[in-house]
Amino acid sequence: MTTNRLEAFSDGVFAIAITLLILAVAVPPGGGAFGPKLLGLWPSYVAYAVSFVVIGAIWINHHGMFQHIVRADGTLLLLNLLNLMVVAFLPFPTAVLASAFLQGTDASTAVALYGGTLAVLGILVNVMWQYAARGRRPIGPHLTEAQADQIGRALLVGPAVYGVATLIGLLVPWIAVLLYLVVNVFYLWPGRVNEGAAAVTGERDASSVVDESEEPQTSR
Amino acid sequence: MTTNRLEAFSDGVFAIAITLLILAVAVPPGGGAFGPKLLGLWPSYVAYAVSFVVIGAIWINHHGMFQHIVRADGTLLLLNLLNLMVVAFLPFPTAVLASAFLQGTDASTAVALYGGTLAVLGILVNVMWQYAARGRRPIGPHLTEAQADQIGRALLVGPAVYGVATLIGLLVPWIAVLLYLVVNVFYLWPGRVNEGAAAVTGERDASSVVDESEEPQTSR
Amino acid sequence: MTTNRLEAFSDGVFAIAITLLILAVAVPPGGGAFGPKLLGLWPSYVAYAVSFVVIGAIWINHHGMFQHIVRADGTLLLLNLLNLMVVAFLPFPTAVLASAFLQGTDASTAVALYGGTLAVLGILVNVMWQYAARGRRPIGPHLTEAQADQIGRALLVGPAVYGVATLIGLLVPWIAVLLYLVVNVFYLWPGRVNEGAAAVTGERDASSVVDESEEPQTSR
Amino acid sequence: MTTNRLEAFSDGVFAIAITLLILAVAVPPGGGAFGPKLLGLWPSYVAYAVSFVVIGAIWINHHGMFQHIVRADGTLLLLNLLNLMVVAFLPFPTAVLASAFLQGTDASTAVALYGGTLAVLGILVNVMWQYAARGRRPIGPHLTEAQADQIGRALLVGPAVYGVATLIGLLVPWIAVLLYLVVNVFYLWPGRVNEGAAAVTGERDASSVVDESEEPQTSR
Repeated sequence: MTTNRLEAFSDGVFAIAITLLILAVAVPPGGGAFGPKLLGLWPSYVAYAVSFVVIGAIWINHHGMFQHIVRADGTLLLLNLLNLMVVAFLPFPTAVLASAFLQGTDASTAVALYGGTLAVLGILVNVMWQYAARGRRPIGPHLTEAQADQIGRALLVGPAVYGVATLIGLLVPWIAVLLYLVVNVFYLWPGRVNEGAAAVTGERDASSVVDESEEPQTSR
Repeated sequence: MTTNRLEAFSDGVFAIAITLLILAVAVPPGGGAFGPKLLGLWPSYVAYAVSFVVIGAIWINHHGMFQHIVRADGTLLLLNLLNLMVVAFLPFPTAVLASAFLQGTDASTAVALYGGTLAVLGILVNVMWQYAARGRRPIGPHLTEAQADQIGRALLVGPAVYGVATLIGLLVPWIAVLLYLVVNVFYLWPGRVNEGAAAVTGERDASSVVDESEEPQTSR
Repeated sequence: MTTNRLEAFSDGVFAIAITLLILAVAVPPGGGAFGPKLLGLWPSYVAYAVSFVVIGAIWINHHGMFQHIVRADGTLLLLNLLNLMVVAFLPFPTAVLASAFLQGTDASTAVALYGGTLAVLGILVNVMWQYAARGRRPIGPHLTEAQADQIGRALLVGPAVYGVATLIGLLVPWIAVLLYLVVNVFYLWPGRVNEGAAAVTGERDASSVVDESEEPQTSR
Repeated sequence: MTTNRLEAFSDGVFAIAITLLILAVAVPPGGGAFGPKLLGLWPSYVAYAVSFVVIGAIWINHHGMFQHIVRADGTLLLLNLLNLMVVAFLPFPTAVLASAFLQGTDASTAVALYGGTLAVLGILVNVMWQYAARGRRPIGPHLTEAQADQIGRALLVGPAVYGVATLIGLLVPWIAVLLYLVVNVFYLWPGRVNEGAAAVTGERDASSVVDESEEPQTSR
């Protein structure tokens, strides 16, 4: 299977999962003034925003990885499917997180579920990249082994940070939520995806990648 | 990242958000005649129709903007993600709006939430365009600085109108809803997207854009 | 705007609307044997199947129409958006239909809502085609005026049939539901989309269309 | 209609159906400790995971089949639509399955519904392939009749296994669920989709298929 098809299917799952997040923000029931009720829903808004940024960052990361992975074999398909299974699961811990903060109880449990889900995803991302880089078959010839290793090391940061944030969250839940947001905004921060993350994703130059692989007709 | 991928992902979010709107129209519970109950749901139908037109207009505007933006760097990715976060949020204020009109209370609060969301989106659209036009990197060479400025000025109309409509809505809610609809139908009105909006989107000729960038093989 | 982008967005809405239909089939609450309850949901299954076939036929019809429409101006965008608004609305009358048959009351009201929605869609489809064919700008040069008129006449069948079926449904609801299904299965029936509908869609030969427009590189 | 369009639409339905699965995992209501409640939802998690793998395998199988089917006539469109109707139905038996295990009753009924749905899908897949292979029109010239027959025989395994698993499930429900999972993981297991399934899908070499049909520009 070409990675085109795999990427299009994955993008579909990302786009749907990110848009379904809003379904967890329930309209407050009638009776009494609407304004205070809407303000009281702030945990739902925060959970929505955090998960939106998280899935956005996962999407960009996935795309960056598949600029190097040019062939998809059976193992990669299965690993990618497991990745998507966790991504598509995220609306549930998001809803649990909002629900716990709304009720004011069990926030630490909800934060642990959320962080644990992200940590599992981080591990699966690493497994997928290790498989792709070890075999050398799935990734293209433009990437040296040293570059592949460098990306692999950078990817280890994810599950490590999520693991630590989850442990912190068991003690002070809202700090963990803040960490989930900050880590992903930091990842998405301009310059990182561009130049900083060029080291991470091994890109030499974004525009040359475009010329070579995605808009071949313009280079003629 | 190429804008192709970014546009496809954004289109996915637009298409999903616009189709999810119907989930807010709840089937009335049994007991008693169905006909009057279905007619009584008119606020849900109006909210559905208004938001459908609004998201449709946002989609067309987004597409128009990305006919000029040809390169996506990290900042643009982040700004676009924030835009999508507000677009995917719209089903919630839509449901709140319908709910408030159905209950006959707090319509002004619901209208303010709806208009406020659109105003925030309008501001984010402006920030995205200003970033793209200032740096001159993301947008293609076919657009002069004067044209880019002209588009920028035209885009300021959005948040201004939504801001004013929201303030009016605090006094007479249904006028604001009407304004949201009229503004977007006016934007979509034939001739504006075509020739009128050609000034706004800076297009010289729709068919030439097609020949150059999207169907290069037909021009040979 | 190219029709490529418009078609991709429309396809997204079709695919989402058709897949959201299942959300209207609710899991029966616990207590008592599951088997009879699941069997008792038959109106939900019928409504799901009918709407799935209906949206499938609309999708194929939309695709057939846009094999002739090669340019999208502002009017066409607006008309297409109105078409999609009705398509994305269909999960609601579907759920109402299932709900009415499940409760055993008001079936005629529900059938009228369903049929009325389809009739409105049928009219909008006609308006879109008339606009495209009259102006002669949106449709490609491969279609003669006589062929365009022939398609226009064939498209009138839709709203006429749905109108009649709705009136019948006010008297004997389940006959109308059967008609909705039969009309669309008949439309989809092998040979019609192929050769029979070749007259309707004005196709000369499916494979030649493919060679010319969608896989140009293989013909070289 | 080209298979490109049909495949894109089908992929959309697969991606949406697989991502909607999470909506069946309901946030537990407040009151009492959250942790035990979340653990008590294990049937929901299992149902989610099983259906995710099942739909993933169906998607890959569908894609493999349409590497051979290069032309879509009316019959194929209708058969494919029926296939998608069953795929998009899967979130319902998934929710029923989770619900039955959560309540601890009627698991055998729920398992039978789930397995029956998969068996029906398996039969429809066979019908679609038999139609494509018999007529010889839809499939490309690269496939010999013997290869087409071989694929046809391999596809018979699906409904047979699902039928048997369903019968077992009437006696020992959880064994059937395990079988649904194992069969699909086995199908997805690395080497099968790659080389093993090359016999099934009739592929000679994945990379050559890519060169010939999907990335023609790279072979020049």
